[in-house]
Amino acid sequence: MTEEREQGGRWSSVELRVHYAETDQMAVVYHANYVKWFETGRTEMLREAGLTYRMLEEQGVLLPVIDLAVHYRQPARYDDRIVVYTRIKDMSKLRLTYQYEVKRMADQNEPSLPREQGELLVTGETSHAWLSQDWKPVRLDKRLPEVYEQLLALYKEGEE
Amino acid sequence: MTEEREQGGRWSSVELRVHYAETDQMAVVYHANYVKWFETGRTEMLREAGLTYRMLEEQGVLLPVIDLAVHYRQPARYDDRIVVYTRIKDMSKLRLTYQYEVKRMADQNEPSLPREQGELLVTGETSHAWLSQDWKPVRLDKRLPEVYEQLLALYKEGEE
Amino acid sequence: MTEEREQGGRWSSVELRVHYAETDQMAVVYHANYVKWFETGRTEMLREAGLTYRMLEEQGVLLPVIDLAVHYRQPARYDDRIVVYTRIKDMSKLRLTYQYEVKRMADQNEPSLPREQGELLVTGETSHAWLSQDWKPVRLDKRLPEVYEQLLALYKEGEE
Amino acid sequence: MTEEREQGGRWSSVELRVHYAETDQMAVVYHANYVKWFETGRTEMLREAGLTYRMLEEQGVLLPVIDLAVHYRQPARYDDRIVVYTRIKDMSKLRLTYQYEVKRMADQNEPSLPREQGELLVTGETSHAWLSQDWKPVRLDKRLPEVYEQLLALYKEGEE
Repeated sequence: MTEEREQGGRWSSVELRVHYAETDQMAVVYHANYVKWFETGRTEMLREAGLTYRMLEEQGVLLPVIDLAVHYRQPARYDDRIVVYTRIKDMSKLRLTYQYEVKRMADQNEPSLPREQGELLVTGETSHAWLSQDWKPVRLDKRLPEVYEQLLALYKEGEE
Repeated sequence: MTEEREQGGRWSSVELRVHYAETDQMAVVYHANYVKWFETGRTEMLREAGLTYRMLEEQGVLLPVIDLAVHYRQPARYDDRIVVYTRIKDMSKLRLTYQYEVKRMADQNEPSLPREQGELLVTGETSHAWLSQDWKPVRLDKRLPEVYEQLLALYKEGEE
Repeated sequence: MTEEREQGGRWSSVELRVHYAETDQMAVVYHANYVKWFETGRTEMLREAGLTYRMLEEQGVLLPVIDLAVHYRQPARYDDRIVVYTRIKDMSKLRLTYQYEVKRMADQNEPSLPREQGELLVTGETSHAWLSQDWKPVRLDKRLPEVYEQLLALYKEGEE
Repeated sequence: MTEEREQGGRWSSVELRVHYAETDQMAVVYHANYVKWFETGRTEMLREAGLTYRMLEEQGVLLPVIDLAVHYRQPARYDDRIVVYTRIKDMSKLRLTYQYEVKRMADQNEPSLPREQGELLVTGETSHAWLSQDWKPVRLDKRLPEVYEQLLALYKEGEE
């Protein structure tokens, strides 16, 4: 599988529907809304791995976005069935970079479709820094070593 | 002036432009976005009176919305020049109710237009409760008596 | 069941998670976002009944919101598991009124929970008018008689 | 001035206030909201030059975003006074790239501050393609030659 040879963790997926609120008068999804879908993608990827971002904040770390890049190929439309694929693209003790693919699924398809299927609409990346509650950089491997190990395992899974 | 005889404070106004992000595929402003404009209306009304909601929170009180009502007459459209009129409709030591009128202005009009002009699009009300940081009710006249007096003056101004 | 005796159709439900984007600095869901959840509620209620709002628009009718009321009891918080309950509260040939209940579910609960469970956070209503593409009122029973009958059946289901 | 020597058009500016709706529970502006501010920036830059995006759409062209990049340095906070600086970074007959700087102003500053002042929070770029109503690429210099010339003049202004 070519996918396995690319650098980065295993892809996780989450399904959603396009809401009316997310469309604009071009009758497509307003471009900033994909950035919110990326949030859904990474949150559900962590949850699948037994981690929640809520717990991370409760343990005193923040993970704000410091870089964002989005490439728009095809527009999503109202009521489209969308799958957001997310994986860890890169990570260090200080930072975490996620990669995203937003795809449109035919309505009858199963949610468990392989990533190769679906129509690719949008790709993107977000980079995040581990910060303390007062917005100072923290080393995740020192602050929350078990979380660091879990993320590293998630990242390494794609390499096998 | 009939306006002066209605119960409630003096009307304050703030101008805004309809953003593309706020439209939906019906080519009108998505209905939830007027609720955000109400926020702009009441924030700028307070600022005009020398109060900022930021300061209120810094002094330890919150003012969340507990009731919302909106009536939609005509839709706002992309790039429309909008004025949000806001006033205090009712207040007690525990609660505050704002009233709103959203109007469309012809592009050449002055921002200082009287409220009677412009095309009425949407009307609404929000009721708010004074709460402490831990979401318990507080009596504003005891907690921040000067703020209570300022709001009362603002409310009474419409009655003269 | 008391629920059955109230006027209105059978309750439908849809589950969602609170996104970070939906919170505000009070660490609760910003009040306008529940209005978007109502949209999700009524859209999924229609879909369950074999109708999609997308199809209605494709057949030339619009159903914009003309009245909105929301009552906020308890705030939803980040990552909460939410169920939006929706039913038809009232309908005529020209209008449709939905009623909503937003509840917080304990994380371990099943999505198929009865409506009586869960913590009630927010209640609301939206009224909608059937319009043609040029925003003129239409009689649904004449324009799309099968859709009218389907909605009527949905509405009557609650009465048995 | 170093600014003048960089490639790209003259900077335009628009001022805004951070709304409560735009904050998240980290007590900062949610990252996707800056993308909406970029829209405000480019729309007001065009308006200053006598062009409105509304007119462009009415003349049958669309200008959707095809690439977006954002770099987050410092967070904006509730009620901050923000200026969004925008200029044309690059343009061809088929595409247009805008560049943005989001700065926080001290409350007492004048809106007409030079760009060198203010605290730099976020920088970004958006690239757009000229499309027809049916989403096919169009050459702006052929479709709307006067608009093309106006944009070119705006772009060249920065070079003097």
